[in-house]
Amino acid sequence: MREAFHDQLESIFDDLAAICSQVEDAVSSATDALLKGDATTAERVISSDAAIDRARERVEETAFSLLSLQAPVAGDLRVVVAALRMVTELERMGDLSVHVAKIARLRVPHVAVPEEIRPTISRMAEVAEDMVRRVQDVITTRDVATAIEVGRDDEEMDQLRRQSFTELLSDSWSHGVEAAVDVALLGRYYERIADHAVSVANRVVFVVTGEFPAALRA
Amino acid sequence: MREAFHDQLESIFDDLAAICSQVEDAVSSATDALLKGDATTAERVISSDAAIDRARERVEETAFSLLSLQAPVAGDLRVVVAALRMVTELERMGDLSVHVAKIARLRVPHVAVPEEIRPTISRMAEVAEDMVRRVQDVITTRDVATAIEVGRDDEEMDQLRRQSFTELLSDSWSHGVEAAVDVALLGRYYERIADHAVSVANRVVFVVTGEFPAALRA
Repeated sequence: MREAFHDQLESIFDDLAAICSQVEDAVSSATDALLKGDATTAERVISSDAAIDRARERVEETAFSLLSLQAPVAGDLRVVVAALRMVTELERMGDLSVHVAKIARLRVPHVAVPEEIRPTISRMAEVAEDMVRRVQDVITTRDVATAIEVGRDDEEMDQLRRQSFTELLSDSWSHGVEAAVDVALLGRYYERIADHAVSVANRVVFVVTGEFPAALRA
Repeated sequence: MREAFHDQLESIFDDLAAICSQVEDAVSSATDALLKGDATTAERVISSDAAIDRARERVEETAFSLLSLQAPVAGDLRVVVAALRMVTELERMGDLSVHVAKIARLRVPHVAVPEEIRPTISRMAEVAEDMVRRVQDVITTRDVATAIEVGRDDEEMDQLRRQSFTELLSDSWSHGVEAAVDVALLGRYYERIADHAVSVANRVVFVVTGEFPAALRA
């Protein structure tokens, strides 16, 4: 019974890692579409999101059957509930990539991000992608040190977001309201992807140690 | 055993309704702070959020103990997991109210929303608040018809969001980039509050009928 439980739990974590890899592709392709003004890639991100949604449903069904048939308690119960939450957050990261792709598509044949602010936005995208990649690692290896590093990357994301506002609101901004609104929303989407990445990483720490990183650091 | 289970489940739903009422206050006070440029009210929304977080933790603990001690299966299991998800979404609605309050506070002694676009933003706020109020009703009464109405309100929210972009991006917009960025982000926050309200209402429909509204309508 216990062995069956842990096998099924392992298979849930494999599925989570696979979904995380789909999310990584979504974030990276959405950024590509955005920075190149590429409608085809944007469309692909938008239509691929349904596959992430279906994968989420499968994880949920497995988790439910695990809860129903094995009635785990204490730590095991918390692990299954953590997995349910992780899959919700991964799906949300996919949705946010779709939002990025939709801004890209809306501005084709132009590029939504003006040259001047491109370094900041493209760095935000890189940080977000890198965080998603690390989260996939964390899900696979359950390595607590890597999980805690994901939280550190988030500090760079916050700093980049402030930087983007400084650029948008400076007197030298010459790209008007539309580009400013696009950039502000894009910043929000990448920031939220990063927030969810931290949250997923923290849940893995919880799964491994029984405590959340804030408590670990305290 | 079964009776104890249902009593505890009822008490979780009472707690969810109470949290929803705290969220309603957060949304309405954040809007007040925003439209009046009132720093004191904004501060109150920001500092009250911790109480919503604590209430969420209590619901989670109760739900965990219910899962551990009663090991519910099938429908009962799904209801407990739905409650866990609802409380996460309610907490998120509180966070989004804090974001609104922070924009209000940032612009004091000015008002973040220019007079010209005030009707649109203030209507978005009204719709959001109204949706949160209905959701509280839905949690208390488990009335499926009211829950489905929450989804209809969301269509007005989407239409208002498009309307706000039209106003921001029109040639007659004379309030510059900063106000446009504030309004775009505010629109995003109210839209997300509305999305979560719909999602909570849908989960109540699921709890009562065993199906989600989309399936019901199909």
